[in-house]
Amino acid sequence: MAPANEITGETTAETKAAVESSHPISTLLIIIAMQTEALPLVTKFQLSEDTDESLFPKGVPWVRYHGTYKDLHINLVWPGKDPSLGVDSVGTISASLVTYASIQALKPDLIINAGTAGGFKAKGANVGDVYVASDAAFHDRRIPIPVFDLYGIGARRTFSTPNLVKDLNLKEGKLSTGDSLDMSPHDEAAISANDATVKDMEGAAVAYVADLLSVPAIFVKAVTDIVDGEKPTAEEFLQNLIAVTAALDQAVTQVVDYVNGKCLPDL
Amino acid sequence: MAPANEITGETTAETKAAVESSHPISTLLIIIAMQTEALPLVTKFQLSEDTDESLFPKGVPWVRYHGTYKDLHINLVWPGKDPSLGVDSVGTISASLVTYASIQALKPDLIINAGTAGGFKAKGANVGDVYVASDAAFHDRRIPIPVFDLYGIGARRTFSTPNLVKDLNLKEGKLSTGDSLDMSPHDEAAISANDATVKDMEGAAVAYVADLLSVPAIFVKAVTDIVDGEKPTAEEFLQNLIAVTAALDQAVTQVVDYVNGKCLPDL
Repeated sequence: MAPANEITGETTAETKAAVESSHPISTLLIIIAMQTEALPLVTKFQLSEDTDESLFPKGVPWVRYHGTYKDLHINLVWPGKDPSLGVDSVGTISASLVTYASIQALKPDLIINAGTAGGFKAKGANVGDVYVASDAAFHDRRIPIPVFDLYGIGARRTFSTPNLVKDLNLKEGKLSTGDSLDMSPHDEAAISANDATVKDMEGAAVAYVADLLSVPAIFVKAVTDIVDGEKPTAEEFLQNLIAVTAALDQAVTQVVDYVNGKCLPDL
Repeated sequence: MAPANEITGETTAETKAAVESSHPISTLLIIIAMQTEALPLVTKFQLSEDTDESLFPKGVPWVRYHGTYKDLHINLVWPGKDPSLGVDSVGTISASLVTYASIQALKPDLIINAGTAGGFKAKGANVGDVYVASDAAFHDRRIPIPVFDLYGIGARRTFSTPNLVKDLNLKEGKLSTGDSLDMSPHDEAAISANDATVKDMEGAAVAYVADLLSVPAIFVKAVTDIVDGEKPTAEEFLQNLIAVTAALDQAVTQVVDYVNGKCLPDL
């Protein structure tokens, strides 16, 4: 299946953003699925957790940290621990919900979705590499009915940041998203059709919601495990999570520093 | 993998609802993924589409129909057509988003998620059967890390309605949800582990959000195709959609008539 770029109206958010935003980026929304990935950035940017009154309704585990860093209002939102099971609320449902609720509450100028990802060595990825996603699509939403198939894949270009990618010397590649950490043969075929270099569990969901609400979004993904390598994903993921998180947080800090004082079209 | 019922805190919404709600059910939220399924009910209950001011933010395709039917304020929410591709916004992401946004806006007493589903003949399902789901879980969120595996499956009991099921003579069975219309071998194994009789693309997502926000939810699912039968799902689904939708709409009408004038614990 070919990516649906031609007909998904992929440039809508980007075009609107470019036209409307000649003012410097002010409010930043950083969405991170895992606490391990989020906390070093909370410390780095000296963000405070919402305590008295949450931005979000009673019952949801979502956590916002916020503060001022240089000229930016930074909001870091983490979907929190599952209320029943106590593990990070990873995956597309939580990611889409916090993206929606945070956009509604904060009206950010720019979203950064940061996280760890699996990488494909056949596409040049190594453990510790940090990618900016040029495109996002799903690989586990197979609907074999004409046009519904394209909706399921949900391929879209992300907000284009050629200067940022070049100046920070980041790698660029396509991102494929699914709700499983492992990769079934069906997933593998879809990821290949999506031409993906990195694979995560949230990106395309954040991209979908950001696009609906016309907020530009950047995807910064650090490779914790090689999917087409020899080690089992879960083992390699847990082994590398801490070290790669350091690389991720460094890259996000660079991106935030780069964004500071700039307008959207400068990126 | 065994269902995670023991540790998911499954009765929270139910218990709260039973304690808090000795008043008759007043505001009903019906969530339906496909226009074909929704429109007959819009006509039946004489609901009006929001026109001037939407309940939802600019950019999202979600549509609310509302009106008064007997003693009930009925809100029927359909996620609408994808803005780029023009097909119904099916699947878990749209379903979770509209459930969240509708609960926030409407504070419903009860949710009814109605829709078509695949059924398993090995579990007694036939085309045209209408099921009320006793449980909901996901079958395409495989995270092979302890506890994360249970989070991925997300098994939960739904709000229990023994009187409604008995008095309306409805079938009861477990529901398994995934974002694909087809069924891969991995999905099949997970659906079997979920002990599911019916398979849909939204239910467990609606159940997850309803549980987070402590709103009781009923799942009414009509079988359009036999998953473990001989015909390909997509073909059988399209063939039976119209006829089975009539059965679904009849069942939803019966459920709404039954709910009218009753309190939650009466169900």
